[in-house]
Amino acid sequence: MSPFDPGAIASLQTHHCFGGTVGFYEHDSRVCGCPMRFSLYAPPQMQQGPRPVLYFLSGLTCTEENFMVKAGAQRFAAELGLCLVVPDTSPRHTGIPDEDTDWVYGSGAGFYLNATQDPWKRHYQMYSYVVEELPILLAQAFAVDLDRQGIMGHSMGGHGALVIGLRNGDRYRSISALAPICHPIASDWTRPAFERYLGDTVAAWKDYDATELLKRYVDPRPLLVDQGLSDPFLQDLMPQSLAQACAETGRSLTLRQHPDYDHSYYFIASLIEDHLRHHAQFLCPGSLDSP
Amino acid sequence: MSPFDPGAIASLQTHHCFGGTVGFYEHDSRVCGCPMRFSLYAPPQMQQGPRPVLYFLSGLTCTEENFMVKAGAQRFAAELGLCLVVPDTSPRHTGIPDEDTDWVYGSGAGFYLNATQDPWKRHYQMYSYVVEELPILLAQAFAVDLDRQGIMGHSMGGHGALVIGLRNGDRYRSISALAPICHPIASDWTRPAFERYLGDTVAAWKDYDATELLKRYVDPRPLLVDQGLSDPFLQDLMPQSLAQACAETGRSLTLRQHPDYDHSYYFIASLIEDHLRHHAQFLCPGSLDSP
Repeated sequence: MSPFDPGAIASLQTHHCFGGTVGFYEHDSRVCGCPMRFSLYAPPQMQQGPRPVLYFLSGLTCTEENFMVKAGAQRFAAELGLCLVVPDTSPRHTGIPDEDTDWVYGSGAGFYLNATQDPWKRHYQMYSYVVEELPILLAQAFAVDLDRQGIMGHSMGGHGALVIGLRNGDRYRSISALAPICHPIASDWTRPAFERYLGDTVAAWKDYDATELLKRYVDPRPLLVDQGLSDPFLQDLMPQSLAQACAETGRSLTLRQHPDYDHSYYFIASLIEDHLRHHAQFLCPGSLDSP
Repeated sequence: MSPFDPGAIASLQTHHCFGGTVGFYEHDSRVCGCPMRFSLYAPPQMQQGPRPVLYFLSGLTCTEENFMVKAGAQRFAAELGLCLVVPDTSPRHTGIPDEDTDWVYGSGAGFYLNATQDPWKRHYQMYSYVVEELPILLAQAFAVDLDRQGIMGHSMGGHGALVIGLRNGDRYRSISALAPICHPIASDWTRPAFERYLGDTVAAWKDYDATELLKRYVDPRPLLVDQGLSDPFLQDLMPQSLAQACAETGRSLTLRQHPDYDHSYYFIASLIEDHLRHHAQFLCPGSLDSP
């Protein structure tokens, strides 16, 4: 796709899967100013008409591929008639000198926020990309119903799903997360990324911190969060901060803490069915056997 | 594990998954004369006592990891109480000069046979490794019931499952395959491996060709085989040869030919449930809701 052509989508590969199609796509992102990739699972029902869209935001180091390959979600997306969309986790190959230096910032670590600092702000606009640009692009090429969107994610992507979901009550009917980073501004692990992308003003960081945002946005959408208790990152994920913020603001939260599970896709695969059924309650209630 | 210590198993990593445990292991193989790796899924029921073992033999270029990561089989192994075992697809790092040169022979391409030719015969003994050494090793370390074994596989591993299953009616109660190589001695794609491992005597090749073996071994075990019709390797897989041999010998075969599916793990994941339920009929009939 050259020269730069926003609006055009190149199909990189497709695979038939559970009666639908897993596809990998690339397009020139106007918001990120570079090519971006995403994967999409079109359930069989999309041949009959527009289906709800459920976004999965992936964790650090992931691309648009990991979830489609490892989570086993297509089985349930096919059953429930949900279109799954997985964006890449950052812009890539932007020419920023230390873009690939560290796994907690730069490529693979976009943190689903809009960077305000040089050199990142030119390309690292993942918040606007996911919230604004990607849905419009999808609607141009696929039978998606943008009035029925849900969002979920894992780890850094769990943070992204919570932040994007909470800040956009008008856009996402349902939110869930697996082992999300719940309070990134309080963690030494995640703070370096926030400093690079957003500068040293803590007030700016709070726009991208689920625990802080829960105090600002009050609405009836319940949250489903799963957390493994053998997760090596547990101390930095801080689900207890999320639980406390939900308690203080009266937000409905189902926080399930599972012994023995770690941070891997084996954990995600074990619980993904529950997440798709959670979202289906709000996105396509008619497809569920029980309320 | 040094010095060479057959019988000892090193656990490389474990992950909790659907209430059981995915583990990756290494041991010094007496048969292959080098370290070998396998993965094992222990379903939750293994904590109560020995469970049937279902082997999955993987395709060209795979390791012991691909199936565990991509197929989503643990969901059903946990439900049915099946122990899943996935051996690596060949010896590795043996020092054979062109071991890593070509994807259709050498490392990642053991073809589940016992090589008789130099330099391969010293290490490439995958048939005896899978049939004889690995089960005994498993029984020493895990709660497995070797009286209840089944075998399945994909592509080169589908060939392996058919060959090993057919030749060992006393060891495997059930056999299935996904997109198996059904008649390798008739394919230009697979013949180079057979020539290197077994020399140029076609009679020796027939010991490892499912279509040929069906003429020799007659028993009541039914075969389940799935094949995608958009599989780019379809011409070399030759499911029609398998179908013809089964027809001629009165062997029960369910050959399901699926439009649109290709050769990938998206195909495997879409159909793996049916394979586990096929094997469970023979390995643990009490666990099935319907006969």
